[in-house]
Amino acid sequence: MRPMLILPLLALTAAAQPATKPKTPADVIAAAPASAWKTIPAEDLLVMDLANGSRVVIQLAPAFAPVHVANIRAFARSGWWNGGKAAIYRVQDNYVVQWGRNETKDPMPAGVVELPPAEYHRQLQGLAVRPLGYSDQYAPGAGHALGWPVAYNPTEGSANLTHCYGYVGVARDLSPDTGNGSELYAIIGHAPRALDRVIAVVGRVVSGMEKMSAFPRGTEALGIYKDRAQDIKIASVQMASEMPAAGRPSFQYLDIQSAAFGEYLQLRANRKDDFFIRPAGGIDLCSASVPIRATPAR
Amino acid sequence: MRPMLILPLLALTAAAQPATKPKTPADVIAAAPASAWKTIPAEDLLVMDLANGSRVVIQLAPAFAPVHVANIRAFARSGWWNGGKAAIYRVQDNYVVQWGRNETKDPMPAGVVELPPAEYHRQLQGLAVRPLGYSDQYAPGAGHALGWPVAYNPTEGSANLTHCYGYVGVARDLSPDTGNGSELYAIIGHAPRALDRVIAVVGRVVSGMEKMSAFPRGTEALGIYKDRAQDIKIASVQMASEMPAAGRPSFQYLDIQSAAFGEYLQLRANRKDDFFIRPAGGIDLCSASVPIRATPAR
Repeated sequence: MRPMLILPLLALTAAAQPATKPKTPADVIAAAPASAWKTIPAEDLLVMDLANGSRVVIQLAPAFAPVHVANIRAFARSGWWNGGKAAIYRVQDNYVVQWGRNETKDPMPAGVVELPPAEYHRQLQGLAVRPLGYSDQYAPGAGHALGWPVAYNPTEGSANLTHCYGYVGVARDLSPDTGNGSELYAIIGHAPRALDRVIAVVGRVVSGMEKMSAFPRGTEALGIYKDRAQDIKIASVQMASEMPAAGRPSFQYLDIQSAAFGEYLQLRANRKDDFFIRPAGGIDLCSASVPIRATPAR
Repeated sequence: MRPMLILPLLALTAAAQPATKPKTPADVIAAAPASAWKTIPAEDLLVMDLANGSRVVIQLAPAFAPVHVANIRAFARSGWWNGGKAAIYRVQDNYVVQWGRNETKDPMPAGVVELPPAEYHRQLQGLAVRPLGYSDQYAPGAGHALGWPVAYNPTEGSANLTHCYGYVGVARDLSPDTGNGSELYAIIGHAPRALDRVIAVVGRVVSGMEKMSAFPRGTEALGIYKDRAQDIKIASVQMASEMPAAGRPSFQYLDIQSAAFGEYLQLRANRKDDFFIRPAGGIDLCSASVPIRATPAR
């Protein structure tokens, strides 16, 4: 028999095609001009180094959860998660990986607000939203703003970040607790959008997600590791802005107001390249991910 | 400071609450009568044992992809994937884990149809669909039928299984190839629903998914492992119906026409238990997963 090719399913990473072939989303991203990319400020990049050598970089979203983000920056600057005091201790399949310092009596670092406001959504007014153009099961509207996916409710005048794959939220106890940011989680499965207006979403993993999602699942309730020896130790968490400029990581996202982003979305909702027998004709918000790349060397 | 609790986020596995507390979806599942559970026929259970000792059990969906499923059964009965000839060779983050025998010149086992029909959807007529009650970005209708999530199009008279987390499809080459079932994949990230009417979905993982999703991601294009030494060897794949009755695995799914399933769905779309400050008021099809359990001992 002919050998089975292993390439197919979905050639997201395909190289540019000859002109006669339908464009792919990857083609559009590759061809986007430098002006369509926005560099993430170093003040918004949280750099987590695990004891095993893996690095995970998280983009924070101060426009959506300013007090929680300020807390996270204060924790990082104080070395709160450094030196083996913090770990990944929960990995629940198709749900979350969670880390931090979960049983400490240490006093909070200076500048940390112990009980932040419930930053589960923000004002819609003043937010330039690019509507997705397709419905959403969890909100009257869905689209993108400031480089982020947002669900919104014009009647209430509110907008919120969404629990998509790789998005980072603040673990909390029952209300009135809102989580102070000492413990965070990232989504490692199908988007649990029911959490959207229930927890503060503070960012997204922009690098290293493939490490976060591949840890062994915890066997205790909620995916907690049974023994503390299973915990994955965190070596340090620091703000990129506190690192020497020469060595700090840098990432860019595709401007959601750019023509390239519009074309990318249109193609993701209507793929016509070789493998796709019929285009979907639609897309859900968490599949319409904002392209991210390492900032190219000048 | 008070210690941070680690339990919250979403107590899906919570024990039954006192009567005064709002019910959770888990409460409804735990209280469902035996009559609401349907046992999966042993002819529909594919049992994959990995060389590392992990077992993965897949429920096949002959009502949706009969020729592909017949092929998979024929492969299993012939020992096609046994004895180290097959492996997991592709793990692409937020996408798929893929396995099988991908470069063989061996003749197909007896009974395998080399080029099955394109079983990417089936006739809607004759399918008792329970509508989800919420919209879908990928089809005019969404709901459940025969214990499976389905998207459907009344105008075309078609219905299809959906690419939800843990669902299993048949890897294929470019059309006109439809995949013969020798290579399969399971979804390990946010549902890539754009694949729905493009590939044959043949089943879902009912046990062992937490092993499948936690393998190291491949670093080559499309998540292929760079070295064949990284491949995760498969020891055997057999039909449960070919195993001794005493030791074979058995699973049940919650009847989608039962009152319990209706209540479960209603609560998943409108959680009001302690952690949920406001109910979502909606749900997407791939979040409305059909509850599965090991068949209780009599």
